[in-house]
Amino acid sequence: MNTLGTLFTLTTFGESHGAAVGGVIDGMPPLIDVDLDFIQSELNRRRPGQSLLTTPRKEADKVEILSGIFEGKTTGQPIGFVVYNENQHSADYDNLRSLFRPSHADYTYQAKYGIRDHRGGGRSSARETISRVVGGAFAKLYLRTKGVSVTAYTSQVGNLSLQGAYTNYDLSLIEQNDVRCPDPEMARKMATLISEVKGEGDTIGGVISCVIKGCPAGLGEPCFDKLHARLGAAMLSINAVKGFEYGEGFAGVSARGSEQNDLFVPPGEGGTTCVAPTDKKADNVPPIATLTNHSGGIQGGLSNGQDIYFRVAFKPVATLLREQRTVNMAGEAVCVKARGRHDACVLPRAVPVVEAMAAMVLADCFMFYNRYNC
Amino acid sequence: MNTLGTLFTLTTFGESHGAAVGGVIDGMPPLIDVDLDFIQSELNRRRPGQSLLTTPRKEADKVEILSGIFEGKTTGQPIGFVVYNENQHSADYDNLRSLFRPSHADYTYQAKYGIRDHRGGGRSSARETISRVVGGAFAKLYLRTKGVSVTAYTSQVGNLSLQGAYTNYDLSLIEQNDVRCPDPEMARKMATLISEVKGEGDTIGGVISCVIKGCPAGLGEPCFDKLHARLGAAMLSINAVKGFEYGEGFAGVSARGSEQNDLFVPPGEGGTTCVAPTDKKADNVPPIATLTNHSGGIQGGLSNGQDIYFRVAFKPVATLLREQRTVNMAGEAVCVKARGRHDACVLPRAVPVVEAMAAMVLADCFMFYNRYNC
Amino acid sequence: MNTLGTLFTLTTFGESHGAAVGGVIDGMPPLIDVDLDFIQSELNRRRPGQSLLTTPRKEADKVEILSGIFEGKTTGQPIGFVVYNENQHSADYDNLRSLFRPSHADYTYQAKYGIRDHRGGGRSSARETISRVVGGAFAKLYLRTKGVSVTAYTSQVGNLSLQGAYTNYDLSLIEQNDVRCPDPEMARKMATLISEVKGEGDTIGGVISCVIKGCPAGLGEPCFDKLHARLGAAMLSINAVKGFEYGEGFAGVSARGSEQNDLFVPPGEGGTTCVAPTDKKADNVPPIATLTNHSGGIQGGLSNGQDIYFRVAFKPVATLLREQRTVNMAGEAVCVKARGRHDACVLPRAVPVVEAMAAMVLADCFMFYNRYNC
Amino acid sequence: MNTLGTLFTLTTFGESHGAAVGGVIDGMPPLIDVDLDFIQSELNRRRPGQSLLTTPRKEADKVEILSGIFEGKTTGQPIGFVVYNENQHSADYDNLRSLFRPSHADYTYQAKYGIRDHRGGGRSSARETISRVVGGAFAKLYLRTKGVSVTAYTSQVGNLSLQGAYTNYDLSLIEQNDVRCPDPEMARKMATLISEVKGEGDTIGGVISCVIKGCPAGLGEPCFDKLHARLGAAMLSINAVKGFEYGEGFAGVSARGSEQNDLFVPPGEGGTTCVAPTDKKADNVPPIATLTNHSGGIQGGLSNGQDIYFRVAFKPVATLLREQRTVNMAGEAVCVKARGRHDACVLPRAVPVVEAMAAMVLADCFMFYNRYNC
Repeated sequence: MNTLGTLFTLTTFGESHGAAVGGVIDGMPPLIDVDLDFIQSELNRRRPGQSLLTTPRKEADKVEILSGIFEGKTTGQPIGFVVYNENQHSADYDNLRSLFRPSHADYTYQAKYGIRDHRGGGRSSARETISRVVGGAFAKLYLRTKGVSVTAYTSQVGNLSLQGAYTNYDLSLIEQNDVRCPDPEMARKMATLISEVKGEGDTIGGVISCVIKGCPAGLGEPCFDKLHARLGAAMLSINAVKGFEYGEGFAGVSARGSEQNDLFVPPGEGGTTCVAPTDKKADNVPPIATLTNHSGGIQGGLSNGQDIYFRVAFKPVATLLREQRTVNMAGEAVCVKARGRHDACVLPRAVPVVEAMAAMVLADCFMFYNRYNC
Repeated sequence: MNTLGTLFTLTTFGESHGAAVGGVIDGMPPLIDVDLDFIQSELNRRRPGQSLLTTPRKEADKVEILSGIFEGKTTGQPIGFVVYNENQHSADYDNLRSLFRPSHADYTYQAKYGIRDHRGGGRSSARETISRVVGGAFAKLYLRTKGVSVTAYTSQVGNLSLQGAYTNYDLSLIEQNDVRCPDPEMARKMATLISEVKGEGDTIGGVISCVIKGCPAGLGEPCFDKLHARLGAAMLSINAVKGFEYGEGFAGVSARGSEQNDLFVPPGEGGTTCVAPTDKKADNVPPIATLTNHSGGIQGGLSNGQDIYFRVAFKPVATLLREQRTVNMAGEAVCVKARGRHDACVLPRAVPVVEAMAAMVLADCFMFYNRYNC
Repeated sequence: MNTLGTLFTLTTFGESHGAAVGGVIDGMPPLIDVDLDFIQSELNRRRPGQSLLTTPRKEADKVEILSGIFEGKTTGQPIGFVVYNENQHSADYDNLRSLFRPSHADYTYQAKYGIRDHRGGGRSSARETISRVVGGAFAKLYLRTKGVSVTAYTSQVGNLSLQGAYTNYDLSLIEQNDVRCPDPEMARKMATLISEVKGEGDTIGGVISCVIKGCPAGLGEPCFDKLHARLGAAMLSINAVKGFEYGEGFAGVSARGSEQNDLFVPPGEGGTTCVAPTDKKADNVPPIATLTNHSGGIQGGLSNGQDIYFRVAFKPVATLLREQRTVNMAGEAVCVKARGRHDACVLPRAVPVVEAMAAMVLADCFMFYNRYNC
Repeated sequence: MNTLGTLFTLTTFGESHGAAVGGVIDGMPPLIDVDLDFIQSELNRRRPGQSLLTTPRKEADKVEILSGIFEGKTTGQPIGFVVYNENQHSADYDNLRSLFRPSHADYTYQAKYGIRDHRGGGRSSARETISRVVGGAFAKLYLRTKGVSVTAYTSQVGNLSLQGAYTNYDLSLIEQNDVRCPDPEMARKMATLISEVKGEGDTIGGVISCVIKGCPAGLGEPCFDKLHARLGAAMLSINAVKGFEYGEGFAGVSARGSEQNDLFVPPGEGGTTCVAPTDKKADNVPPIATLTNHSGGIQGGLSNGQDIYFRVAFKPVATLLREQRTVNMAGEAVCVKARGRHDACVLPRAVPVVEAMAAMVLADCFMFYNRYNC
C-alpha cells in the first residue's frame, strides 16, 4: 500500500496540505556515512519554485532526520524523517471541495474511501514524492559503496524528442539546464514549448529516460520479481506515469530475433565487458562481453552486467488553468478552473523522482542478491 | 520471488524438463463453483502444438488439482496443482550445457546461482507460465461472480499493427483464428508473416492488448500499489515482455492536457457511465460518466469504473534456428544453433497468459477493496 | 523488521535518546471518528513518571499526528505521527559507550550491526513501545466499531499471583491502582514488593493477562497465521517478554482431553453463546454455545466467538542499580552499574502495550476476515 | 496464510483425505547437496504407525520432489514436492459431516468459510505438518553448512516431566525410544501413561523442548521480528500448541534481575564462549562468554551466540474414542464418538515438526543476516 520494497523499504505518509510529509526507511545497511547535504540537494532538485518552468509554490522542503543515524553513520535501524509543509494556500482549493477534477484522483478516492482531503489533491498530490526522493537519496548512498550510479534525464517533451540512445549524449550536462535534458539545444526548445503551453493554461507530457551503470550480473529475482518488473512497478507508481519500457522496448517488437539478440563474445574481442558478479558468485562464470545491448542490461529478469536503461512516459498534468466541464458531489454538471500554483510540465522535477525509485529498487535487489552468498 | 500477490496468491515451481510444473493458489474465496473444463480449456489455449504457428512440442498439459476443492466448490483452502511434463527431448539441449545462448537467461542464471538446469531453459522457460494460466483460471472464476471480464488479443506482429482502440473491433472473433487477432484479415497477414519468419529460422515480436470490463470504481491502492503499477509488474514478469503502457500510454505524452483529460458528465448527458463502487461505498459518490477514456480506466492508481485497457510489448523470441556467435563456460568464442521445437512468435500463446496475470492482479485487488467494507 | 501486520500495519522508528520516536499506521479504515484525547490517554498509561512505581524520567510524551485525518475522521490514508524526545539525560549513559550491559541488547546489536547508539539502549529501548501504543489506540478506535474490547492487567509480580481466571475479577478496577491489578488487596502487596526490590537496586518480573471480548467466530487464518500465533508473535516482540500461552496454556498439558475439551451445546442449554460470524458468513452455521472455554476462544487457529484470553511472561528488567561484572569493547573484564532512571518492574507500564499489540493484531485479522465477504 | 517465512519460504497445501499434501519451498540457496534419504528419514520420524504409541493409520508418506534440484544439487529455484495420500478410510468420518467435534476446528472453519472438508479434519488435520517436515529437512541441509543443529525432544507427558535443563541429558538417546525422551527411564513411564490413557479412549498433552546449537551472534531482527517472536509464532502455528517460552520463560518471572542476568566475562575466565558473528561482522566485537544462559541464547531479540532453547506446550488431542456432547449443523444437541485411527498423545510424532519449524525460521533469519554483509 504505502510501503515500497521488501528488505530495503520506504513507507510514506502525508498530504499536500496536511502538517507534513515524511516516511520511514527500513533496512538501510549500517555503517554507511550519511551525507546530509547530498540528501537535501536531491530534495532541492525536486523542489517547486526552482526555476521559471516549475510551479511558483515556494517551499524550502527541508528534511529533518529523526532516527537511525549515530555520529554520522547509519546504524541499521529505521530512519524516520519529516518535511513540514509550509506556504500552503489551502483556500485556493475551496472550490474543489465538492467537485471532481477531470482525470484527477478526486472521484476515485471518493469512491474508494467515501472521504478525501480535497486540498491540493491531498494524499494523491505529487508532494508525496518528496518522501521518495529522501528514500532514494539514502539508497544512492548505499549504491555508491557498490559502484552503482543512476542517472535520469528528460528525453522528450511533447513532440520534441532526443534521437538515439543515451550513449549519444553527455550526461554530465543534464543538470545544467532547467529541463534536465543532456542536449542543450533541445533543452532550449523544450523550455520554450513548456512556456508556450503554460501561457495557454494548458499542460504537456513527455518521457524521462534513465540509465544505471555498474550493476553486477545477477541482480533481480526470476519469475514474478524480475528486475525490470520491479523497476516498472516503481516507475508506474509515480504520479502521471502511463508507460514503461526497457531496452529496445516497444520499438523492438517489430525487429527480428536475429537483429535484437545480443551476441556474447570474450572480452577483448569487441563489445562491452559485463560487470561480473561479486564474491564467490564470480567463480562459476567466465568473463564475458556483449556486442550490443538491445536487452537493456537485463536478461531473464536478471541484470547481466551491462548498462540498464529504460524509458518512462508521463502524461500531461491534469490540472489546467482553464475551464473544464465536470460533475459535483451532487451529480450535477458544473465547470472547474484550477486556481493555485501548478506545473505545466512535470518532467524536470520528476527526473530526481525517477532516479530515487530506481535507486530504491536496486538497493532492495542488492539485499536479495547478498542473501545466500555469505 | 516465485509468489505473485498478497491476498490472492500464486506460488509456482517447475522446470521445462523437470518432473512437473505446478503451484499453489492461496486466498481463493470459498464457495465458488469450480468448472474444471474451463480451467483445462484455458491451458489448452496456451498449449504447444495447437496450431501450425506454434512449437510442435506436443504436450497434453493436463492439470491435476490436488486440494482446496470439496464437492465441486472451493473451500477457501490452498489449491495445489501439478502438470507433469511429458514428451521431453532433453537430448536436444545437450549442446547448451556448457554455453550461453544469446539474449537468454543462461548467463544471468549461471552468474546468480552458480548452477542451472540447461535443459530447455530450465526454470527460465516459458513453460512456467502454465502455472500462471491455472492461477488465472481460478481468478477468472472469482471475477465472474463480480461481473468482471478480461480479454486479450494480438494487436501487432512485427510491423503489422491494428489501428485504433479495442472499441473498433469485435472481440468475439479473437479465438476464431490461430493468431488471436480480432481482425480476420489482419490475422491472416500476421499468420503469413510468422510463417515467413519461421521459414528463415528467425523470430518476430509484437504487442498484446488487453481490456478489462466491469470493474467497480475504487480497485487498487494508492501510492506504491496503484492498479496500473500492479498490472504493469505482472505483465513485465512474463517472459519476453519489454514494455507496458495503459490508456494512451507513450502516444499520449505528446498531447496537451486539454486533449487528454476525460471530462466528467452526469450519466445521460453523453459519455459512458462508470461502474459504481459496490456496497456502502456507493453511498458517498454520485452516478457519473466520462466523455472519453484516455485514462484507460484508472485515475490516481484506482479504477474509475470505465474499461481498463493496456498494451504489452513482446520482443522476438531469442531462440533462433540459425547459427549465432556466443561464449562457452570456459570463456571461449563458439557458435550455437538451436535444436528442438520453438515458437517463431510467442504472441498467440501468450494471449491467455496476459489474461491470467491480469485476472490474478484483479482478484487480489478485490480482496484489498473488500477489506474494510464489511 | 520494523513493520507489524499486513493490512493494518504499524511501522516504527526512533531511539531512546534520538530526536523522536514515531511511526506510520497504514490500512486504517476510513470514516472512523478520531478521538485524540483517547489516543493521548493511552500514551499517558504508558508514560514514565506516572506513579512512584515507575521510572522518574519525566516525559510529556505528547503525540503529534501528521497525516491521514481530515475534519476529525480517518481518510484511509497513512497516519504519520511523532513524539519528540525531551528530558534526556544522555550523559547518564556515557559509561555504557564502550561496554556491554549484561542481558541487554548491547552485545547483540554490536555483533549484528557493528555500530549502536548506546544512549539509553538506543533502538532497543522500550521507549519504542510508544509507537505501539499509538498504533494500538487507532486499532482500538476501529475495534470499537465492531464491538470488540481488549483489556489487560497485571496478574503476577514475582511470586505474588492472582488465583483463577479473569472471570473471578472485576476488570473495571484495573486502572484504579498503580500496578494495574484488578484485585486491590493484591495490588497493594505487589506495590510493596516492587518498592522493596527497587530499594535493593534490583528488579522483578511478572505476568500480564489479557482478555478480548466480542470477536465474531472466524478471525485468524489457518496454518501459519493462526490467530494465537499472531498474538503470540506480537507479545513476544515486546521487550522483556519470555513466554506466551493462551487458554489453559502450559497448565493444561497435564490434563486429559476429556477434561480439556469444550463441549458444544445449543444456546439456552447452558454455557456461553458464541459471537456469530457477521454478514453472510452467519448463514452457514447454527447459533452455538460452549459449556467451558479451556480453548481460550480459539480453535484451529480461528476465533470461535468466545472470550479470547492469554498470558504474557515478563522477565525482571536487566538494568540494575548495582554493580555487575561484564566485558568491554576491548574484551576486558570490567564492572558496570546503571545510572539514570529505571523501572524496577515494567509490568504496570506494559499493560497498555500488551493491549495495543493485541488490538493491532485483531484489526489486521478483521481486514483478512472481510476480504472475500463483500 | 499458508506461507511461512520471507526469504526462505514454505507454502503448503492439502487435506487429510484429499489427493495429496505438498508444498513449495522457495529461497533455498543454490549448490547445496540434496540428501534425499535424509529428507525421507525426517518424514519417517513423523509418520503414523511407526510404533505402538501412535495412530495405526499406515502411510508410506513417500515424498516426491518435482523441481529445483539438478544433478543432486539445489539450483536456487523453487522446490515443489508432493506426498500422495493413501490408506484413507474416509467413511470413518461420515458421521462428522453434519456436526462439530468439540475443541476441533470444525465449527470455526464452517463459520469462516461456510464450507469445509469434514473428512479427517480436512485442511485442519495435522497431516498438513508433513509439508512442514519436508521444508524443515531442506532447511536443515542448509543449516548444516553453517554448523547449526536443531534438536527437540519430549520433556513432559501429562504430569511426568523431566527435571532441569537440556544440559542434564544425553540428547543422543532421544531417538532410541518411541516417546523421543532423552531419559530412558522417564521414556518408559511416559509410554506406560500414554498406553493407559489410550486404553481409556482418552488423550494426554505434554511439552516438547528444543535446543539449537551453533548460531552466530546476530540472528533475528529487532522490533517485530525478534528471533524468539518468530520461533514462537512458528511453534504456535503447530496443531494443538497452547504455549511457548524460551530461556527461563514463565518460571523466570518470579526471580530478581540479579538472579536472571547473564554476566559477560572474557573467554577463558569461566562460562561458555559465544559463537561470534561471521565474516566482517566479527571485526567489531570482542570474543566474549557468558557465565550463565538464563536468556536462552537470545538478547534484545537477537541470538547472542549461546545455545538457544525453548519449550512448547501441547494440549491433549481433541479427538476422543468416547462419547461427547455436541451440536450439529441444524443446531441440535447430539453425541459424537470418534471412529478412525488416532493418537492418544501427539508429542512423539510432533518432535520432528518442532525441529522442522525451528529450522525453517533459522534458515530465513540467516538470509536476513546475510543481506547487507557482502
